[in-house]
Amino acid sequence: MNNSFNSKLKKACEEKNNRLCIGLDINPKVDTDNEVKIIDYIESFAKEVIDATIEFCPVYKPNLAFYEKFGYKGIKVLESIVDYIDGRAITIADAKRGDIGNTTKRYASAIFEKMGFDSITVSPYMGRDSIKPFIDNESKGAFILCLTSNKSAIDFQFLKENGRTLYQKVAEVGVELNSNNNVGLVVGATQPEYMESIIDYSKGLNWLIPGIGAQGGDLEKSLLICKRSDKIGIINVSRGILSAGNGEIDDIVSATINYTNEIRKYI
Amino acid sequence: MNNSFNSKLKKACEEKNNRLCIGLDINPKVDTDNEVKIIDYIESFAKEVIDATIEFCPVYKPNLAFYEKFGYKGIKVLESIVDYIDGRAITIADAKRGDIGNTTKRYASAIFEKMGFDSITVSPYMGRDSIKPFIDNESKGAFILCLTSNKSAIDFQFLKENGRTLYQKVAEVGVELNSNNNVGLVVGATQPEYMESIIDYSKGLNWLIPGIGAQGGDLEKSLLICKRSDKIGIINVSRGILSAGNGEIDDIVSATINYTNEIRKYI
Repeated sequence: MNNSFNSKLKKACEEKNNRLCIGLDINPKVDTDNEVKIIDYIESFAKEVIDATIEFCPVYKPNLAFYEKFGYKGIKVLESIVDYIDGRAITIADAKRGDIGNTTKRYASAIFEKMGFDSITVSPYMGRDSIKPFIDNESKGAFILCLTSNKSAIDFQFLKENGRTLYQKVAEVGVELNSNNNVGLVVGATQPEYMESIIDYSKGLNWLIPGIGAQGGDLEKSLLICKRSDKIGIINVSRGILSAGNGEIDDIVSATINYTNEIRKYI
Repeated sequence: MNNSFNSKLKKACEEKNNRLCIGLDINPKVDTDNEVKIIDYIESFAKEVIDATIEFCPVYKPNLAFYEKFGYKGIKVLESIVDYIDGRAITIADAKRGDIGNTTKRYASAIFEKMGFDSITVSPYMGRDSIKPFIDNESKGAFILCLTSNKSAIDFQFLKENGRTLYQKVAEVGVELNSNNNVGLVVGATQPEYMESIIDYSKGLNWLIPGIGAQGGDLEKSLLICKRSDKIGIINVSRGILSAGNGEIDDIVSATINYTNEIRKYI
């Protein structure tokens, strides 16, 4: 399964000796209300960030909301950004989709074929058949929301039946679905004490780890947990890199190098 | 709260004496691979369906996957379809979004401001703060996935803690979030025995009911449950109308009238 998504992810991370994922969630700081100018800015800024960081960075993850906000013009720019990466790094569509199978097939077509992403984040509420169409093709991957980094993760994810929480059950189902070696989990870094409780339920699955930086998650602990349990932990940083210093490209490169050096200590 | 989403939904349903929602999930049956022609067909077919049914139909619900599949061009057409409805019926973006608050704000902006929808379907996995930005404006509404109509709904939604299932807990949180009178639940028609178990947990919330038609749900039981518990039950039909007979406009109008007559027996 050398063409499987998880193999490709591992290869990209090892080649760049890094586990960093830059979240391309761009907040345009431009002095205009002209939407065309704002969208143009996002496109050129994203490409500038990619050019300046792709030497170090193995994974990029645009959150679709930041592009959908601009309607079809935003989606057009997003397509152009993914196209620009062109296989030089792994791409994750942070879209948190999930629907009945018949519909999920179309989302898979949108994200993988039309937009050209390598993988997607998926919301598991509707169960297995809402996830499967995303992982039918081994070369494309899905990161299933498991334990998220936001405060209200506690509302539903911690529901417990027979000593097992919802997020643990989601991890278990993720393992069952991983026969193509292309499933991962989203495991927030903001709650290291609970991250530990997923290890035994997520054998063979990599983790996409948001919550580092602006949300206050713990990089060292997150990576050490992954190292100990023999999985790749992808550290997503969005605002912590894109808004570093004055938000100039030099600041962004410095922040990328700082995160890279920090990550390399623990992998 | 006459401008609240739930008030507007009620008014639209009462004016047309109907509870039908046509799911605008268009499967183009065109003899071409030319994407521009396919998208043009979807746009003109959707508008033809709207023209032919809006006299009876109070609610339309396009599923975004069917448009995203065509990339930015699909989104452009979707914007044009919502614009075409122009307040003559309530619109639901079947998008099943949900993300951290900072991101959900942008989805709300995309769906309500940019695309002009009245409401959205929301996936609750990430909890309250992933739902709130969708309901800050009382005139816009959110239908939270509660008990879905697909087979693998059972994977997670039936997890039970202290005698209460996940879907019941979601309903409870929906009630808590309904201070602007703009929250509803998605409650699939395929499991009437479980629909009953949500009534006590969903006071004041309307239900969007998928699963009638192609998925085999029970229209009569669904509507009688809603009537008995004093809520509006919106009956979504997608394939059962758009693919009726030979899929010609006359067939679609007949199916719409048939569903309307059936619905009127039980409201």
